[in-house]
Amino acid sequence: MRMVDLIEKKRDGKSLSTEEIQYTVNGYTTGEIPDYQVSALLMAIYFQGMSEQERADLTMSMVESGDQIDLSAIEGIKVDKHSTGGVGDTTTLILGPLVAAVDVPVAKMSGRGLGHTGGTIDKLEAVPGFNVELTSEEFTKLVNEIKVAVMGQSGNLTPADKKLYALRDVTATVNSIPLIASSIMSKKIAAGADAIVLDVKTGAGAFMKDEEQARELAQAMVRIGNNVGRKTMAVISDMSQPLGMAIGNALEIKEAIDTLKGEGPDDLTELCLVLGSYMVYLAEKASSLEEAREKLEEAIANGKALERFKEFLAGQGGDSSVVDDPSKLPQAEHKIELPSKESGTVYEIVADDVGTAAMWLGAGRATKDSKIDLAVGLMLNKKVGDQVQAGETLVTIFANDPSQIEKVKEKLLESIKISKEKVTVPALIVGQITGE
Amino acid sequence: MRMVDLIEKKRDGKSLSTEEIQYTVNGYTTGEIPDYQVSALLMAIYFQGMSEQERADLTMSMVESGDQIDLSAIEGIKVDKHSTGGVGDTTTLILGPLVAAVDVPVAKMSGRGLGHTGGTIDKLEAVPGFNVELTSEEFTKLVNEIKVAVMGQSGNLTPADKKLYALRDVTATVNSIPLIASSIMSKKIAAGADAIVLDVKTGAGAFMKDEEQARELAQAMVRIGNNVGRKTMAVISDMSQPLGMAIGNALEIKEAIDTLKGEGPDDLTELCLVLGSYMVYLAEKASSLEEAREKLEEAIANGKALERFKEFLAGQGGDSSVVDDPSKLPQAEHKIELPSKESGTVYEIVADDVGTAAMWLGAGRATKDSKIDLAVGLMLNKKVGDQVQAGETLVTIFANDPSQIEKVKEKLLESIKISKEKVTVPALIVGQITGE
Repeated sequence: MRMVDLIEKKRDGKSLSTEEIQYTVNGYTTGEIPDYQVSALLMAIYFQGMSEQERADLTMSMVESGDQIDLSAIEGIKVDKHSTGGVGDTTTLILGPLVAAVDVPVAKMSGRGLGHTGGTIDKLEAVPGFNVELTSEEFTKLVNEIKVAVMGQSGNLTPADKKLYALRDVTATVNSIPLIASSIMSKKIAAGADAIVLDVKTGAGAFMKDEEQARELAQAMVRIGNNVGRKTMAVISDMSQPLGMAIGNALEIKEAIDTLKGEGPDDLTELCLVLGSYMVYLAEKASSLEEAREKLEEAIANGKALERFKEFLAGQGGDSSVVDDPSKLPQAEHKIELPSKESGTVYEIVADDVGTAAMWLGAGRATKDSKIDLAVGLMLNKKVGDQVQAGETLVTIFANDPSQIEKVKEKLLESIKISKEKVTVPALIVGQITGE
Repeated sequence: MRMVDLIEKKRDGKSLSTEEIQYTVNGYTTGEIPDYQVSALLMAIYFQGMSEQERADLTMSMVESGDQIDLSAIEGIKVDKHSTGGVGDTTTLILGPLVAAVDVPVAKMSGRGLGHTGGTIDKLEAVPGFNVELTSEEFTKLVNEIKVAVMGQSGNLTPADKKLYALRDVTATVNSIPLIASSIMSKKIAAGADAIVLDVKTGAGAFMKDEEQARELAQAMVRIGNNVGRKTMAVISDMSQPLGMAIGNALEIKEAIDTLKGEGPDDLTELCLVLGSYMVYLAEKASSLEEAREKLEEAIANGKALERFKEFLAGQGGDSSVVDDPSKLPQAEHKIELPSKESGTVYEIVADDVGTAAMWLGAGRATKDSKIDLAVGLMLNKKVGDQVQAGETLVTIFANDPSQIEKVKEKLLESIKISKEKVTVPALIVGQITGE
């Protein structure tokens, strides 16, 4: 097999065989196939796409390029949830205890990463004492007992994907549906998921700004999952404005507590119920999505979801009394209410920009070495469609570094747009892909 | 400027600016821009093409990447001819003395290269004593006095093109009209041409098998030339069968002598007259193509072209008596006439395969280190459209190595196809591009 022939084949719109894709992925991982041939292939894929079979083959070749987590010691069907990322997305914190409360095992491996706020692990570290450094045995024991545990990702998962992603990043080949879909799915599968629930964000604050593209990506991932024997479902959800009200680590823990109590923001609650239903259904703890949803609503109403959150925190050494007294979470020194300059209806909250403002406060990492301030962030007081009077609070700023406040205020006033006209509130759930 | 942004721009079908193309070519030549970004860009160009301005910019950036030959010491307009390569193409050997006989300066730098036969320099070395190792001063003096000289190429011409070509070769990005056109034109311009005549071959024996592609390439090169201030004309000529009768180094010298005498094969003579007319016209030694052609026909008829060939050989130390006694050229030991097995009309002579047979005899280089046998080769006795009787000679094999003869015979009998049906002879001149 010669790499140049494979590039030519793809360039001419033909499909690569399973063996050809394995050859490429293995050769690239070991360094036998040089970057310059792979980047030419990636650009050819950008233009010519990949067949369903090719996508499945690429995914599994990347899975097989490194370690694979073995979750077989955990009882039940392990369902993993993945979101393509947005601003103020607290769903993972809520879904863990929520579905665990109806007996669905959640064995979550999570990272820290860059972004507007920290990753799930960073957020959980806002709870005093919470420990993510578990051994594999401790992790398995916790999931079997409490049905939910979170640990930092370890092992050399999907090195091929890491290498390919780094190359795509510098060769303008990131934005290709088959490549994005295979990359995400390979990571979920290598992490040991039996079934996968996807939350593909669309709108200004999402990676996929365009709804049609988001739908295509969701469809692509669901097909890969089902083609490689992992039942997969997806929601396409709106990220034109931040999800929920909180953007910040401790602030999102507080918001998760509220939501598990049944007192969370409507959009966040609804999305958790939809994604949670998929998880419960795929874990075979309900025979329909409707039944799954009813079980989750019940777990919130009867306090079991909140109780499970406490057990989860305590199980990993965290101070579960924060659930009843959130003032024990890290608190910011300055709490500034930002008033609206005009009256009208909020018609846009540019999610990306609001996220950037939170990052300036220290809620997220701009570079790998940035230190996160768990206490800081933003609480929205208004969302799109809400009426606002001049002088009324739009958003509350939680800050420790006073030097950032003026800049953040300015950014927020630019990002939160008010109109005298009638405003249409964007639908939260833009699409659902529950099967082929 | 960031390379990834330029790749993205081209990927999205936008045009790169002059500065962006210079940045890319310079950065790649110096090694500051890595292979993997350039190969992604090349693949994006493969799909998105290049504007006329981009092609001109790429050409001139490659010209400026290395040495440029200064022919200003040579009087007159220096017209260079380039052929995209075929089988048995003796035109360069004929055109030099032919247009020199009507006062057009031919300052030919030539290479050896790989192929079915040697390059122009190899062929000329079949003339005893002929020397291509000239100093720049000797070369200039010869062209000014005799109007024609040939020397081996020296200097570091178009290093960017060399590096890009090597990368294209392993990334399936060779076959792109803008990249091929810029590559060829950059080499001609760096070699000092004021005006350029192109012979773009099409058909089974050519790089461009497809006529439409050949026309597109010719058009692309003519536009680049004219856009960068080098008057350029092109012929698209048939290479479905070999040109002329001779394929081999000394054999082609003999064929050149015949043609300069007016006794050459019709197709070779005609193509030389067409290409020669362009050269004479572009050198401003005639005010129309018709006048140019008349001058050339006259130079053949009155013996001046042949006389100029003798002077050219003698000027570079060659034994010009070979012109009157071609038996002084290297002679092969074995001369085998290959008879036809059937009667009918020749309907195809697969040029590539006939060329390969000549290479097996030793007429060309399979690898850079192969040694050429100047004496060996093939003389066709029949061309497409000719009647042939069973037992009549199709082709004469000139060999020194008897071990190759059976293999060559077999290949030739496969390549020369005979039909009982009526045969259409392909037109020699498929197209002409004489201006915008």
